[in-house]
Amino acid sequence: MEVLKERIRREGVNLGHGILKVDSFLNHQVDAWLMMLIGKEMARRMGRLGATKVLTAEISGIAPALMTAWALGIPVVYARKTKPITMPDHALCESAPSHTKGQQVELMVSPEFLTPDDRVLIIDDFLATGNTINALIRIVQQSGATLVGIGAIIEKSFEGGRAALEDLGVPVESLVVITDMSNGRIEFAD
Amino acid sequence: MEVLKERIRREGVNLGHGILKVDSFLNHQVDAWLMMLIGKEMARRMGRLGATKVLTAEISGIAPALMTAWALGIPVVYARKTKPITMPDHALCESAPSHTKGQQVELMVSPEFLTPDDRVLIIDDFLATGNTINALIRIVQQSGATLVGIGAIIEKSFEGGRAALEDLGVPVESLVVITDMSNGRIEFAD
Repeated sequence: MEVLKERIRREGVNLGHGILKVDSFLNHQVDAWLMMLIGKEMARRMGRLGATKVLTAEISGIAPALMTAWALGIPVVYARKTKPITMPDHALCESAPSHTKGQQVELMVSPEFLTPDDRVLIIDDFLATGNTINALIRIVQQSGATLVGIGAIIEKSFEGGRAALEDLGVPVESLVVITDMSNGRIEFAD
Repeated sequence: MEVLKERIRREGVNLGHGILKVDSFLNHQVDAWLMMLIGKEMARRMGRLGATKVLTAEISGIAPALMTAWALGIPVVYARKTKPITMPDHALCESAPSHTKGQQVELMVSPEFLTPDDRVLIIDDFLATGNTINALIRIVQQSGATLVGIGAIIEKSFEGGRAALEDLGVPVESLVVITDMSNGRIEFAD
C-alpha cells in the first residue's frame, strides 16, 4: 500500500530494537482519512471471506479495525486489557508478552460477542513476533468461532511472526512489510 | 439522536450505581456503522468551530472520536493511560478518577501532537461526573492549544458533569441525555 509506505518513510522513526514509532498517524495521533483508506484496502483484500466480526486488541488496533469493520459492514470487537465492571466473570482470556510495554498483558473478550456462529477476521496494527495476534487466535479458538483471516497494517518480517500463522490455512495480509530495521534503517519489501 | 436512543433502549443494561452497560455497540463490541452516524452528527453540530484536532481518551472514546475526526477531515489524538516507550518523557499529563475502573488513571499526551496553534474538540463516549473530560481540558490548557468544543455520545445528566463545563464558554453537545437511572430505570431527556 504505497500511501502508507510513503507515510512511514516520511514520519516513521526507528527507535532501535525493532521499534518503529508511528505516533503521528497510527499509535497516538491517528490520521482518520488514512485509516479509512486502510479499512477499505483491508476490506478489498478480505471481503470474500464472509467474516461476521472483526476482532482486534486495544488500543492501537482499534482505529484500523474499526474502519475495516465499517468497510465490511460488520461489527468490531476489541479485546480488553483490563476487565471493566461491565464484563462478565467468565470472559475468554489469554495472555501475551507485550513488545512495547515490556510486560505480560491479558486480553479478554466477553463470550457475549464471540460465538460459534461467528467468522472472525483478526486485524491489528503490527505483525511482529505475532504474540498479540496469537493470543487473539487462541481467544477465537476458545470461543468456538471460525478464524477466516488475519490482517496487519505493518508487518516487521524480520521478527518472524508470520511463520506461526501460515499453518492456520487462512489468508494473512499485511499492507506494508518492513524487512530490516538494523542500524537505523527502515527497509521495505519489494 | 433517535437511532442511538433506540439502541440504548434495546441493548443498554442498567447495572446499578449509575453504570450503563453498552458493550454490544460502544464499549467492547462496536457497531462501526452507528459510529459513522455518530461521527457525522457530531461533525454537523461542531463543524463551524474550526477545530484542527479531535482529542479523546483511550479506550472507549477512540471509536466515536475517530469517526468525528474523519467527518471533520482532521486527525484525532487519544490520550494514553500507560506511557508507551515511543512517548517522550515530557508528556502533558493529568489524572482523573475512573468511574468504571474504580481507581485513579493518568492521561498522557505527547506535546508533539497538541500545540498552541491547535483548536481542540474534545470527544468522549460518556459525560458523567466529567472527570475524564476535565482532565482532557487541563491537558489542552497545559499545551497552550485552544479548546473549541466538547462532545459526548451519552450524557448522564444526573451525575452533574455538565455544570463544570458550562463556564468554559464553548459548546457542550451530547447526542443522548439520560436523566435518571435509579431503580433500574433508563430515562431520557425530552
